[in-house]
Amino acid sequence: MTAPPGTDAAPDARLAEYLLRHGDDRLVLGHRLSEWAGHAPILEEDIALGNVALDLIGQGAALLGLAGAAEGAGRDADALAYFREAVDFRNALLCELPRGDFAFTVVRQFLFDAYDVLVTEALSASSDAALAGVMAKAYKEARYHVRHSGEWVVRLGDGTDESRRRAQDAVDALWRYGPELLTPDALDEDMRSLGTGADLDALRPAWESSVRAVLDDATLRVPAAGFPARGGRQGRHTEHLGLMLAEMQIVARSHPGASW
Amino acid sequence: MTAPPGTDAAPDARLAEYLLRHGDDRLVLGHRLSEWAGHAPILEEDIALGNVALDLIGQGAALLGLAGAAEGAGRDADALAYFREAVDFRNALLCELPRGDFAFTVVRQFLFDAYDVLVTEALSASSDAALAGVMAKAYKEARYHVRHSGEWVVRLGDGTDESRRRAQDAVDALWRYGPELLTPDALDEDMRSLGTGADLDALRPAWESSVRAVLDDATLRVPAAGFPARGGRQGRHTEHLGLMLAEMQIVARSHPGASW
Repeated sequence: MTAPPGTDAAPDARLAEYLLRHGDDRLVLGHRLSEWAGHAPILEEDIALGNVALDLIGQGAALLGLAGAAEGAGRDADALAYFREAVDFRNALLCELPRGDFAFTVVRQFLFDAYDVLVTEALSASSDAALAGVMAKAYKEARYHVRHSGEWVVRLGDGTDESRRRAQDAVDALWRYGPELLTPDALDEDMRSLGTGADLDALRPAWESSVRAVLDDATLRVPAAGFPARGGRQGRHTEHLGLMLAEMQIVARSHPGASW
Repeated sequence: MTAPPGTDAAPDARLAEYLLRHGDDRLVLGHRLSEWAGHAPILEEDIALGNVALDLIGQGAALLGLAGAAEGAGRDADALAYFREAVDFRNALLCELPRGDFAFTVVRQFLFDAYDVLVTEALSASSDAALAGVMAKAYKEARYHVRHSGEWVVRLGDGTDESRRRAQDAVDALWRYGPELLTPDALDEDMRSLGTGADLDALRPAWESSVRAVLDDATLRVPAAGFPARGGRQGRHTEHLGLMLAEMQIVARSHPGASW
């Protein structure tokens, strides 16, 4: 494992690390969502989840491409996606949890999307033009994603007894994974001060109020704040990420550099 | 198993059967392709295969919707996708074979796409306006699909020794599955004579010449005509379809009618 660069690291190394966070969130969550391919209970939702997954993986690929360029070590998006170990991934833990049932997938997606629509909007104004460009496109997609997942949260919460129970279980289990997305650390502060990064402290109230509004509509209970789950930004992941990466990387690693 | 309607069946039953063939081809092949989600060796190809899969599943859902309406028994696309047994599926056998390696997937996709671009163009002029509408949209997608898969066939065939060997193995294994797509039976003749269906006899030479041109470019050998594999149109499937459907249908069947 490479130690995360501190604020004394070269600006490009810090930018690369920042880009990895955002790229890995999308790559990992997109992959989790794509595990639903052919398993959703409704054809229309099979297609919708697949489209969201491809949006996220596409955003992730673009951001990893920028991270590789900032790093300057000759790694492209494929090298970063397929040839890093779990400890070198920088996604938030929320993104790597196993897909669970449909309610878990929907609630996790909504918690992320409600963050994503804010952070992509903020980063569309980044002083880094390449990052701003990727995020401006991602913002358009995120606006659709959050509407879609929010509507599903309401359908599940305000649905049958079973759908409501499952949705509430998901909210209860996932709630403590939200703060990692919205609590700045030294790198976030540093990137924000340069005009490159988002101001997470400013986004957090908006995230909380939009999430609470949807949970209210869904007649779901907002859990008490639990012990926040953190570590992904520093490469301390659950075992689930390693298992997911083993699956995701096997074809590329079996034939490194092969043109087929 | 419901016996396929003969030419003495009511026109709507024959149309429903015809629509099922085209819908099932797309649903089943789209699902096979979606099994690559997160497993392709290149991020860009992961996204491209995913997009093709979603196109095909979307077309399949639209065609199954029309089939359900023609049938008049109250089954919608979801009921047809998730609550039929393998013997009631009408896809060609080519579409249901396991995904194999990347070369197998690419070659199978190309053989289908080269047919698909012809049949969707022909059916865009169907006397059935709803079918024509779905196929006009599908034709636009199919033109992209066949270009993409054809380029991959050339990259693999004209690539490394290993990619060439794998591509040739795939061509050899898949060749006998092509005829089922392009050999008309009584229902095809019937639908053609009504102006609803495509004239497969007229499409077959175009398919053969476009496939041979790409295999030539790829420096791949066209196999001798083997014993044609058939039966899917009549519900006689390989065991692979049943296993695939068990996976695809389990969530919907575990909670039939549940809103989550």
